[in-house]
Amino acid sequence: MATLDDIAKELGVSKGTVSKALNGARDVSRKMQQTVLEKAVELGYSRVSPVREAPRMALFILNMDYAGPQDFGYDLVMGFRQVAEPAGFRVDIIPLDLETQLGIRYDAYMMREHYCGGVFLGMSLVDPWLKEFETCITPTVLYDNHVSCNPNVTSIGVDIEEGLQLAIRYLTSLGHNRIGYLSSALESYVYRRRYEAFIQVMESMGLPCDESVMGNSFLINNCISEHLPRLLENGCTAIVCSHDMLAHSVMLYCFEQGIRIPEDVSVLGHDDILLCRYTAPPLATIRQNRSALGKSAFFALMSHQNGVPLSSHLLHAELVQRGSCGSAPKEPRVFHLRQQ
Amino acid sequence: MATLDDIAKELGVSKGTVSKALNGARDVSRKMQQTVLEKAVELGYSRVSPVREAPRMALFILNMDYAGPQDFGYDLVMGFRQVAEPAGFRVDIIPLDLETQLGIRYDAYMMREHYCGGVFLGMSLVDPWLKEFETCITPTVLYDNHVSCNPNVTSIGVDIEEGLQLAIRYLTSLGHNRIGYLSSALESYVYRRRYEAFIQVMESMGLPCDESVMGNSFLINNCISEHLPRLLENGCTAIVCSHDMLAHSVMLYCFEQGIRIPEDVSVLGHDDILLCRYTAPPLATIRQNRSALGKSAFFALMSHQNGVPLSSHLLHAELVQRGSCGSAPKEPRVFHLRQQ
Repeated sequence: MATLDDIAKELGVSKGTVSKALNGARDVSRKMQQTVLEKAVELGYSRVSPVREAPRMALFILNMDYAGPQDFGYDLVMGFRQVAEPAGFRVDIIPLDLETQLGIRYDAYMMREHYCGGVFLGMSLVDPWLKEFETCITPTVLYDNHVSCNPNVTSIGVDIEEGLQLAIRYLTSLGHNRIGYLSSALESYVYRRRYEAFIQVMESMGLPCDESVMGNSFLINNCISEHLPRLLENGCTAIVCSHDMLAHSVMLYCFEQGIRIPEDVSVLGHDDILLCRYTAPPLATIRQNRSALGKSAFFALMSHQNGVPLSSHLLHAELVQRGSCGSAPKEPRVFHLRQQ
Repeated sequence: MATLDDIAKELGVSKGTVSKALNGARDVSRKMQQTVLEKAVELGYSRVSPVREAPRMALFILNMDYAGPQDFGYDLVMGFRQVAEPAGFRVDIIPLDLETQLGIRYDAYMMREHYCGGVFLGMSLVDPWLKEFETCITPTVLYDNHVSCNPNVTSIGVDIEEGLQLAIRYLTSLGHNRIGYLSSALESYVYRRRYEAFIQVMESMGLPCDESVMGNSFLINNCISEHLPRLLENGCTAIVCSHDMLAHSVMLYCFEQGIRIPEDVSVLGHDDILLCRYTAPPLATIRQNRSALGKSAFFALMSHQNGVPLSSHLLHAELVQRGSCGSAPKEPRVFHLRQQ
């Protein structure tokens, strides 16, 4: 294992400078500190944690609100804290911006801030640090993202295929056999995986599944205007959506067009956001148990500490049955929507 | 929740009989005990564990030796015990036979024996209890098997796709681009998954992959005689095998035919059984860290107890590089083997 001497020698600076830089002393420049941190990471230097403090974990949040119980990220954060803090860890919640990611490498950041592990909620495929997860040395947990072949990184999430199995079995039990799928753009890891899993489950159950009953667009409005009329005209009596907000928009469109839910068309979302209970009718959905997900992020980090590096750690999916799904109509209505 | 009274009423027997049956009293017949246990499970009765004893977990073993360090199951069992026993659980190791499975339903067995959770190592697709895992209520962990849509069942294993990614990347870095795959019969869950993952990874890397370079048979001898000559004649300079014993047989065949390993052909297995270190040359393989797997089985059961039911819990794969893999030959030899 590399020592302070090794780092000093490689950089041609004194051991004192290295020590000060690693400890964030004020008389070492920000630039020198970063140079030292990145060299320390490169050489595999391992900091001896000061015993006086609780070990620290970082929970990074991006593209997600978490301030109150109505926000998607709230239960994720609470679930994590509920198990990490009683176990003796200090948890810092860090809204992560682009500037931070561009300013310092991930491992160097984690060493500078004395974090023993990091969890990422809501990372997008264009975030600069995502590429670094392929080689990072810090124990790291990614929610709804996946990086292969780095033993230090674990993926957590809900079993996507199982969720769609539960949903499609439920819809077929209600008599639906023409089931459509609408999705946000497939550049997101989770939307792509849900889209692919829908196809896979439909095919495994011998149900028809092709472009005539599927569609995806970046914006919800485009998804509705460009794809939904086609799905309805092609005889879909049930529509599964990649997320609840999209499912809600499907319901609004149907309301405007005089299409009854669930008598004419059943609608089912993903996630179980708070809104689902308050739509008319309430929205059936494939639930993400966010409190359990937050807890599982901590268990995944602890598994690293116990010498059992996990690749993926998936929760069981839960189907929430609500009024937006009902029996398939005996004689499906024929829609002519494009002309309207 | 069902009470003793409910069970007694349903069966038309006294509450005393139900109580005795649940506690295994000798003056209740085996048949009555089983009837009571199965009704108790059906009604969702939950036994209050006697506080005087440590909670008990059952580790079922099938089709696998585990008596000594040379056996495949040994480290699995030890890994599990190493974490379960210090955590206060009593662990019973149970070689499971067909008779037991046919004699009593799984949940009733677990209730009769006072187990709070079960782990299954080496279950085959024809074992009678496998079907019961689709609906069982006992927290259950399956090693290298998968049952979908039952929140009480978790799959554990190694990330199969990641293992094949590591192996194929390694072989291509050595200059191989014609890579074959030999497998045991695909009726086993894990052999089928490895076979499919090989195709998936090869395709994702743009490498040729079709029936001319793949083969599977139930018996190792058949696999060698029916498929290996074809793979070699079709120009494979590297062969990945579904398990180490098969890879070892490939090496023996090559030795008999005067085919040099790794100069002419590289060979790579799965599992890292003890033999791999002692073959000539030593066998490269995709390792199953069995001690870590045993530990992860316990963590998966504990996750149920913590209210976080897991669907799957996969360890990172490890590639073990050894002498059986080397640089691809600059001019691959042309083999004519069928005629011999």
